[in-house]
Amino acid sequence: MRLRNKPRAAGEIAANPQYITTTPAEFKGQWQSKFTQNQPLSIEVGSGKGRFIVEMAKANPERNFIGIEIQQSVAIMILEKQLTAQLPNLYLIQADGGELTDFFADDEVAQIYLNFSDPWPKTRHAKRRLTHQLFLKMYQAILQPQGSLQFKTDNRGLFEYSLISFNQFGMQFDDLSLDLHADEAPENIETEYEQRFSQMGHPIYLISAHFE
Amino acid sequence: MRLRNKPRAAGEIAANPQYITTTPAEFKGQWQSKFTQNQPLSIEVGSGKGRFIVEMAKANPERNFIGIEIQQSVAIMILEKQLTAQLPNLYLIQADGGELTDFFADDEVAQIYLNFSDPWPKTRHAKRRLTHQLFLKMYQAILQPQGSLQFKTDNRGLFEYSLISFNQFGMQFDDLSLDLHADEAPENIETEYEQRFSQMGHPIYLISAHFE
Ligand SMILES: C[S@@+](CC[C@H](N)C(=O)[O-])C[C@H]1O[C@@H](n2cnc3c(N)ncnc32)[C@H](O)[C@@H]1O
Ligand SMILES: C[S@@+](CC[C@H](N)C(=O)[O-])C[C@H]1O[C@@H](n2cnc3c(N)ncnc32)[C@H](O)[C@@H]1O
Repeated sequence: MRLRNKPRAAGEIAANPQYITTTPAEFKGQWQSKFTQNQPLSIEVGSGKGRFIVEMAKANPERNFIGIEIQQSVAIMILEKQLTAQLPNLYLIQADGGELTDFFADDEVAQIYLNFSDPWPKTRHAKRRLTHQLFLKMYQAILQPQGSLQFKTDNRGLFEYSLISFNQFGMQFDDLSLDLHADEAPENIETEYEQRFSQMGHPIYLISAHFE
Repeated sequence: MRLRNKPRAAGEIAANPQYITTTPAEFKGQWQSKFTQNQPLSIEVGSGKGRFIVEMAKANPERNFIGIEIQQSVAIMILEKQLTAQLPNLYLIQADGGELTDFFADDEVAQIYLNFSDPWPKTRHAKRRLTHQLFLKMYQAILQPQGSLQFKTDNRGLFEYSLISFNQFGMQFDDLSLDLHADEAPENIETEYEQRFSQMGHPIYLISAHFE
């Protein structure tokens, strides 16, 4: 069942406040109340169809997860996965991840994941890249002191840009792969884009870093 | 003419002090005296057969260059190129680049180049990698404040290690490519290893960074 029809999709979202919200600012500082257990919170910005965040939540019951997706028609696909899985440690936000500091209190988040973020290749659109320093400032604010940011992509230009951006912002690199699927990475959970692009033979890049 | 015979090679080196030395500590702080012009000094550690340093010296007459190569039989191949080219802005050192701070005074060097350095893939040999922090400390000492370090390689493991090493040492990234030959890089001068490995289809990685 795909709810591509807008009013139906909006209705489905409104009918499931236990799994998804479109007004996340209301829960700033209180996200733990959405879960059955109070445990470290990881978020993903730009979850797409949600394979990553759903599988992460399944594989890590001792952590809580929030997937953020701006597009209603895409967010609904994650909601449908969660309606089937009913994971007690997964919650969804359909809203613009560009306003993260309105959604999360300082130090509320333990990990941030970015997967195959839109590349915005034109220099004049650099500020829209989720690894631009404007976003890094927000991540730094909501992340706990030793909290980490992990980013995967197949997009070479965006990855090169992001390494420089993280470095120049003063972030510390913890882990880095220029061909993740050639490494032994048994705990790697593939996203929909990752499956598609690795099948096409693209190397998958990964960086994990923290703020000081 | 290849002087692979050891005594003959040693004789050839001894006969050309205007182009090469095996006792570089003697010239610490005085390298400009080796050149016809006093101008910014770039060095390469591990020059191999010397294509890079010779072509760099040809292409940049307003800079001075020193190629450092530990192996006598390899250094002699650079010397032979220089005996033909007779470049006034190129000098050679046949010695161990692991002792750079004995060879160069603080702030004597404007750029350091590392090209296709030996990867030393085993963790217990990490200290031998030319991008290990023990080497970075030496580079920092001899480089001028805004001096830069540029590193090219096709070796994924070494490049991943080096990005983390540079970042954790506090170096600032200025330029980065994960597929140099796919970029427009008209001023790139290829090394012997670079020619060989790019022909085999390996991507060539580049990072340029500075100390603060
Ligand atoms: C290229 S897709 C990748 C999807 C998924 N992460 C994957 O790897 O398969 C990028 C996704 O990010 C979403 N997105 C882009 N900007 C966003 C923002 N500011 N806030 C939330 N989601 C965003 C897009 O709607 C899209 O679904
Ligand atoms: C893999 S080769 C690359 C040669 C050349 N840079 C190229 O790209 O074609 C590495 C070279 O570095 C030299 N080398 C290794 N360790 C060195 C050291 N400590 N000091 C100077 N040269 C060194 C080796 O003898 C060898 O010629």
